[in-house]
Amino acid sequence: MTLFFEGSEKKLEIHVCQTLGDLRQLGRNFWHALVKKANADIISSIANDECDAYLLSESSLFVWHDRFVLLTCGNSTLVDAFIFFIDSVGASQIRFACYQRKSEFVSQLQASSFAEDLKLIKASIAGKAFRVGHLDSHHHYLFHTDAPFEDAVNDTTSELLMYHISGDMAQYLRSDRQTATQIRELLSLRALFPSFILDDHLFSPLGYSVNGIRGRYYFTIHISPQEQSAYVSIETNLPLGEYPQPIFADLLKLLMPRSWDIMSFNEKHPDEYFPAHLCLSTCSIATSLGYNIHFSHYQQSCTEVLIPEFI
Amino acid sequence: MTLFFEGSEKKLEIHVCQTLGDLRQLGRNFWHALVKKANADIISSIANDECDAYLLSESSLFVWHDRFVLLTCGNSTLVDAFIFFIDSVGASQIRFACYQRKSEFVSQLQASSFAEDLKLIKASIAGKAFRVGHLDSHHHYLFHTDAPFEDAVNDTTSELLMYHISGDMAQYLRSDRQTATQIRELLSLRALFPSFILDDHLFSPLGYSVNGIRGRYYFTIHISPQEQSAYVSIETNLPLGEYPQPIFADLLKLLMPRSWDIMSFNEKHPDEYFPAHLCLSTCSIATSLGYNIHFSHYQQSCTEVLIPEFI
Repeated sequence: MTLFFEGSEKKLEIHVCQTLGDLRQLGRNFWHALVKKANADIISSIANDECDAYLLSESSLFVWHDRFVLLTCGNSTLVDAFIFFIDSVGASQIRFACYQRKSEFVSQLQASSFAEDLKLIKASIAGKAFRVGHLDSHHHYLFHTDAPFEDAVNDTTSELLMYHISGDMAQYLRSDRQTATQIRELLSLRALFPSFILDDHLFSPLGYSVNGIRGRYYFTIHISPQEQSAYVSIETNLPLGEYPQPIFADLLKLLMPRSWDIMSFNEKHPDEYFPAHLCLSTCSIATSLGYNIHFSHYQQSCTEVLIPEFI
Repeated sequence: MTLFFEGSEKKLEIHVCQTLGDLRQLGRNFWHALVKKANADIISSIANDECDAYLLSESSLFVWHDRFVLLTCGNSTLVDAFIFFIDSVGASQIRFACYQRKSEFVSQLQASSFAEDLKLIKASIAGKAFRVGHLDSHHHYLFHTDAPFEDAVNDTTSELLMYHISGDMAQYLRSDRQTATQIRELLSLRALFPSFILDDHLFSPLGYSVNGIRGRYYFTIHISPQEQSAYVSIETNLPLGEYPQPIFADLLKLLMPRSWDIMSFNEKHPDEYFPAHLCLSTCSIATSLGYNIHFSHYQQSCTEVLIPEFI
């Protein structure tokens, strides 16, 4: 059996009340304890005037004065970090929370199902949950609080999730001669994200993560290139519709995934520069809070010749 | 949450040595005990000179003098029936065995994973196992014995697995005014399968199964129309390449699935009459026994507008 790694992430975004003070002042020990609850560790960090960005053993954490985004992959237990945060600051200090689970390759290996997570969450904080996408295909679970939250519409996030990358770049990412510097160059991070501070890490035996921040903006890329479970994600709060570089289209052309998803919040990502594809399914959700979620699942338009995996 | 049912089947096909005698003589009690091991029950049966066909609470069982095919859906434990059969007759009496698990909608709800099944099987009988299809999309697990078996190449089977049926027929199958007679007519079973003896059953609240036999030929159709996990399968040992009716194409046009798989043994099913589609992936496997397996995963060529499922 080939190497397997569950690259797909769980994600937690929380916005807090002003009365709680600056989240960044909670200090590294607090955030260390939080990510520990998710079974992750802090590897390194960068900071600017607006944001602390932590690179984790399982993905990333970004902390601003009034919000944070925590992404964890593998068999992490992000729901425990969510509950830990609620217990630490009190549910009344949370203006908005969103907990998301993306399609997992092997959900049986996860510590819990979304339904089990939801039971824990709803015992601590009120909200709504749904699934978008068919169970036999890419699908995403999402919980969000439903208390009034007027800022929601200004909060833009775009996620591109790429499955089964192929071609030269994929081969390079699976080789044993790769370096972080070389990956950064091949991804053209300097061109795509000028003026961003970068922090990256090459995992052993495979895998690469990078965080980037500029002012209040962030992006994060996580690469799990393992042959049978290849997955690459990028997430950013940059307003991609107005951004000079077609970041997502460029990455699709470089990484040549067999299929990919776009999940975006308050931004419908244009797909005209994407490689030839069929959009298998799409969904637009207007939440009760006033913000909009768009989901689209794309597939390359040529037939893939599969190789059986012997077990 | 809408009604959920795991329609996707596990399948066991076993061919025995002549020295074991006629499998049909093992009697209904033996087969009753076998299907009980899989957590299923016999509802009814039909027979002709060549074959006994049992309709089960979870799919179907077909018994010929030297072989049987057992299909079970839901949370059935088919691997236990496999082990029970090996223990009952002895591994040396088994000329060929094939154990298959299709993509499951919610694999976490299953009693075991394929990996766990495989551990049990390999402790009782030698063979090879593989997966075809990506983990984040339709995929199939298959174990087969690898002892020499010269008849394998004459054994033809075709399976069509349809996901997320739509249109009038799907609506009818989800209604509370349906009858078995009406479903049989709408499926045009008399025209598609002339001279077959039929045995069918309408399940409560939803679901329909039908077995048909003619001489040594069989077909079986199982319909789980539940909105979020709609799944319809047909399987037959008819030589579809030479058959006058384009059975699979007709059913695709009637049931309008969003996606479908073809799994065939010693027969590559022609897809020229299929509704407009993209073939997402395909795989041909020449087994060490000399028989060939073909897998293809199709998707309708238009974009589906998804509706989120609130949980």
